[in-house]
Amino acid sequence: MRVSLKDVAAHAGVSIKTVSNVVNNYQHVTPAMRDRVQRSIDALGYQPNLTARHLRKGRTGIIALALPELGNPYFAELTAAVINAAAAHDYIVLLDHTGGRREQEVLVSQGFRARVIDGLILSPIELETEDLRHRSEQVPLVLLGEREYDLPYDHIAIDNVDAARAAVRHLVGLGRREVAFIGARRARSEPAQLRVRGWREELGAAGLPADDGLVAETDGWGHADGAAAMSRILDSGRRPDAVFAYNDPMAIGAMRVLHERGLRIPEDIAVVGFDDVVEGRFGAVTLTSVSPDKEAIGRLAVESVLARLGGAVPEPRRIRADYTLVERESTVGRR
Amino acid sequence: MRVSLKDVAAHAGVSIKTVSNVVNNYQHVTPAMRDRVQRSIDALGYQPNLTARHLRKGRTGIIALALPELGNPYFAELTAAVINAAAAHDYIVLLDHTGGRREQEVLVSQGFRARVIDGLILSPIELETEDLRHRSEQVPLVLLGEREYDLPYDHIAIDNVDAARAAVRHLVGLGRREVAFIGARRARSEPAQLRVRGWREELGAAGLPADDGLVAETDGWGHADGAAAMSRILDSGRRPDAVFAYNDPMAIGAMRVLHERGLRIPEDIAVVGFDDVVEGRFGAVTLTSVSPDKEAIGRLAVESVLARLGGAVPEPRRIRADYTLVERESTVGRR
Repeated sequence: MRVSLKDVAAHAGVSIKTVSNVVNNYQHVTPAMRDRVQRSIDALGYQPNLTARHLRKGRTGIIALALPELGNPYFAELTAAVINAAAAHDYIVLLDHTGGRREQEVLVSQGFRARVIDGLILSPIELETEDLRHRSEQVPLVLLGEREYDLPYDHIAIDNVDAARAAVRHLVGLGRREVAFIGARRARSEPAQLRVRGWREELGAAGLPADDGLVAETDGWGHADGAAAMSRILDSGRRPDAVFAYNDPMAIGAMRVLHERGLRIPEDIAVVGFDDVVEGRFGAVTLTSVSPDKEAIGRLAVESVLARLGGAVPEPRRIRADYTLVERESTVGRR
Repeated sequence: MRVSLKDVAAHAGVSIKTVSNVVNNYQHVTPAMRDRVQRSIDALGYQPNLTARHLRKGRTGIIALALPELGNPYFAELTAAVINAAAAHDYIVLLDHTGGRREQEVLVSQGFRARVIDGLILSPIELETEDLRHRSEQVPLVLLGEREYDLPYDHIAIDNVDAARAAVRHLVGLGRREVAFIGARRARSEPAQLRVRGWREELGAAGLPADDGLVAETDGWGHADGAAAMSRILDSGRRPDAVFAYNDPMAIGAMRVLHERGLRIPEDIAVVGFDDVVEGRFGAVTLTSVSPDKEAIGRLAVESVLARLGGAVPEPRRIRADYTLVERESTVGRR
């Protein structure tokens, strides 16, 4: 017969609630109590079934998180934030990889996993409004990131135009006059477009030309794409005095090329990235970056899903997460 | 009424098999055929239910992948490899985060998600043999990584002692005589112990002392841990001419400290990492690293799970994945 929570409680001489707290890994259990309960769990061979409670409510206890790219450290850090936020509500996270392709995003948003999940957090790249308009799926959907949809779903994003303007303002404030943008997209990509728009607007506000010859389009988002884009700009004969990259890996790839060509950072060319991933803090030249509040984005996403599961159906919300610009050596030098 | 695969096939004038191939994203469908089927899918509003086939067999179509750390880019790259390998068999991957803590690893291995998953791939850090000895769970389990268990489970790992010896041999071959090791563990950690053993054995084979004063213990695995460990060695008055780090992020953290202190890499100190993550290829000084065959590890893990689901119960296997040592600027300089 299956050993129950009640059996463990009786064996350990504690309440069922205490056993539950240990099993669910709540923080307010003392180490001594945790040991005592664990000994009973071991003695009886109890196997906690964390999903039972969810199943009683007709739920699975699982939230899906669908991301375009796991190799990008921003998404790895965001995933950790979502997992932590979900764990606080006894939810586990099923991770899905869309590759940023529209057909995969449609499949995910149409709920091909509806039997398995209670809610979906989706960070789309190519998904169109029309793809979501006829969504019949009952599973709550929360959207992350920069694509705009005129549809009744919660949507969490930072203000990308504003954040890009802050990055360019920082460079202009340091006296830079030729600011390149690395990572515009050949394919349709709202985040890249919004960041290019911010770049253009801020240069305009500073009375500087937004020169298309200083915008490098790329197909991918990685280090190698940033390196190739930087090479193309330099090979074209241009010598900007600053570079704003779509994300940190691209900025780091660009910096590698600058090192190879003997250009000094920031003296010859200042560099700003986006996402503030850990790796940017440990290069030979540390990277100035726009830092979205990833913990808040993860927490807000999980809470949005759970609010809709809770029976209340709040008005769909457009939630702006915070960002900061973190100044490091790639723009202000070693201090 | 729910639109079926059959309805789509009739509408598109193709076989059910062809529709299935499109829905399941198989490679051998021509773009023209894919378009034709997709138009019928769109016209009829068909929602593919990828789990139906699995459910008919009493399966869920989900493999869990339990990892100690998502922030570590090695695990992000390994996750991508597992997801790709699983997708080739129409399996999706549920990602689990153990934090490398024994109690979480026990919970996962005891199958607290048994209703949801068909198989489990676990990369344990602290899990003990005794934790697995009484595992009653029927869900196939495949172990990844360096911990050794004398138990009948498939286990996939590279030979860590051998790989560490290759790294140290490379340094000794370059004439280095004082090789530090960064990332030994205060807590019990088999991978770190195996790599320290390899470091010790290879120095011994070269007739060099394996000096405990050059072994830096750390609690964590990240950039900051590597930086702190490097600082401690230098602050102790030691000046090794080479560093072998437990992994790439720690090596990169150590290199940051060497830069700050004006030490040249590799002229003053050569550095070797482990895992060959993308970031190591784009620093101001690119990083020499032990490169496990991550694609093969992901593929072998998925195939091991599926073989056990297939009814056959093959003998548990110890599978050695390949590795190579990739030489870059941090040891051989810019060429």
